[in-house]
Amino acid sequence: MTNTKQIWINFVQQLQDAICAALEQCDGKATFKEDKWERPEGGGGKTRVIANGNVFEKGGVNTSIVFGEVTPLMRQQLKIDGHSWFACGLSLVIHPINPFVPTVHCNYRMFELYNEAGEVMDRWFGGGTDLTPYYLIDEDAIHFHQTYKDACDKSDPSFFPSFKKHCDDYFVNTHRGNERRGIGGIFYDYQRVGDNKPVEFWINLAKDCGYAFMDAYVPIVEKRKHTPYNDAHKHWQEIRRGRYVEFNLVHDRGTIFGLKTNGRIESILMSLPPTVRFEYNYQPIAGSEEDKLLQACLQPKEWV
Amino acid sequence: MTNTKQIWINFVQQLQDAICAALEQCDGKATFKEDKWERPEGGGGKTRVIANGNVFEKGGVNTSIVFGEVTPLMRQQLKIDGHSWFACGLSLVIHPINPFVPTVHCNYRMFELYNEAGEVMDRWFGGGTDLTPYYLIDEDAIHFHQTYKDACDKSDPSFFPSFKKHCDDYFVNTHRGNERRGIGGIFYDYQRVGDNKPVEFWINLAKDCGYAFMDAYVPIVEKRKHTPYNDAHKHWQEIRRGRYVEFNLVHDRGTIFGLKTNGRIESILMSLPPTVRFEYNYQPIAGSEEDKLLQACLQPKEWV
Repeated sequence: MTNTKQIWINFVQQLQDAICAALEQCDGKATFKEDKWERPEGGGGKTRVIANGNVFEKGGVNTSIVFGEVTPLMRQQLKIDGHSWFACGLSLVIHPINPFVPTVHCNYRMFELYNEAGEVMDRWFGGGTDLTPYYLIDEDAIHFHQTYKDACDKSDPSFFPSFKKHCDDYFVNTHRGNERRGIGGIFYDYQRVGDNKPVEFWINLAKDCGYAFMDAYVPIVEKRKHTPYNDAHKHWQEIRRGRYVEFNLVHDRGTIFGLKTNGRIESILMSLPPTVRFEYNYQPIAGSEEDKLLQACLQPKEWV
Repeated sequence: MTNTKQIWINFVQQLQDAICAALEQCDGKATFKEDKWERPEGGGGKTRVIANGNVFEKGGVNTSIVFGEVTPLMRQQLKIDGHSWFACGLSLVIHPINPFVPTVHCNYRMFELYNEAGEVMDRWFGGGTDLTPYYLIDEDAIHFHQTYKDACDKSDPSFFPSFKKHCDDYFVNTHRGNERRGIGGIFYDYQRVGDNKPVEFWINLAKDCGYAFMDAYVPIVEKRKHTPYNDAHKHWQEIRRGRYVEFNLVHDRGTIFGLKTNGRIESILMSLPPTVRFEYNYQPIAGSEEDKLLQACLQPKEWV
């Protein structure tokens, strides 16, 4: 195994451990249960799921190391060429109970393509973390974006504005008048070695952003997890979770690819929220706190 | 307007009235609220929604009459050719409160394609009704299928077996080991005038099957609507409703086409269940009533 591969795998697995430990401490009751799974065509993963905690209603922090031959479907859907491939990444989605604690998603991955001799033909990095609040608290939105700006700035000050825009442009329910899933964060993809950017550069970016999760998200949870809420707040959270389901099942490239290519279904769909509501033509009252969140999803804002 | 078009429109609108009246009587509390909508590119529809009744938690009985030019997207996605098109149909989904009352879906539609001179180049009919129970009651499954067999047999005794198979083959969550959404019914599509089958033949089939809804579904509701149930039954219903969401958003051709082509989103997504649950790797206990339903979805059965 190449050194790069091993460095990346170590990073991903250590990040999984660190995030799970931080979230368990934050929850104070539930712990992650691990399912190790194998992929018949090559590789496997560790799915870690938390449920029915003090703070977290449902969540997963998954890693996978998968590889195989490039299939015709991959050629067509991923627009890639080559003989074989390797992918390794971490993916998490956390759905808290309290509607004042936002849902969060993150994903950091490396993809390698090989020729018939097994030499690396291409390699790229992707990743990002985005926040899906149910109620907009400006202070939390600013803290979240500032943390990722600081993390990105260590690598390149031009990254944050461009990754923020990429995130706002990707997590969109186009079928709902371009309503975003949440208030964004950062998202980057297809980042390759080149110019003054050796492989270590991209691994360091992923490390900085990956570990920033603890600083970006955990303090928001700590600050909001005891906020009192009522049935109306929960109702709104479940309506918004419906939009999360719509995005993940209709638009998310990773989910759709997994579903169409016989991925491990329970690991892919662990991202879906625990309880969800779909009501015909539900509209929040203009000017309400619910509407304020909706407007922020319709018109992304520069938080920092 | 051609005679065929007008006969079809009248049928669809009268069926909508008849079904809404039958369901309101069955519910005894809630009534349908109508939203008339217009499509900027041509035509519109009547969306009728029922919610929070004695019996029905959420449901819609919609009709639409839409037309326009054939766009490049339609050429590509629907694989059709021609200058302009017309489509008219009824579509319904009913989600009852009581987990012992099945969910039901039905759809009957006619599609016409015209050349530049406005002459009919092609015309086809599609339709079907399928049942999604949460608990399998053999007597109800037999009654439902027998009613549609009788309706189809009036036109052609070869139809029911083939439409039943088409239904079992279509409503499938392929990403869940080919688990069906429910226990099927009938489904047909792309049925054209030809041989000894004039346009009246296909309209009569749609009428027979469309009006069979009252005989097929309403008696099941009447028989089961007072069945006592507890939280565990409701929990299972919400888990299965999750599969309904997965099918509609990931696989259903009509839904996906609507979402990608700027259809009226609230009318398209009225099919989604009111409350839904997604749990990681939820498996019913082998041999339980829940498992019995699951097995019937995995292995479609000939009920008549």
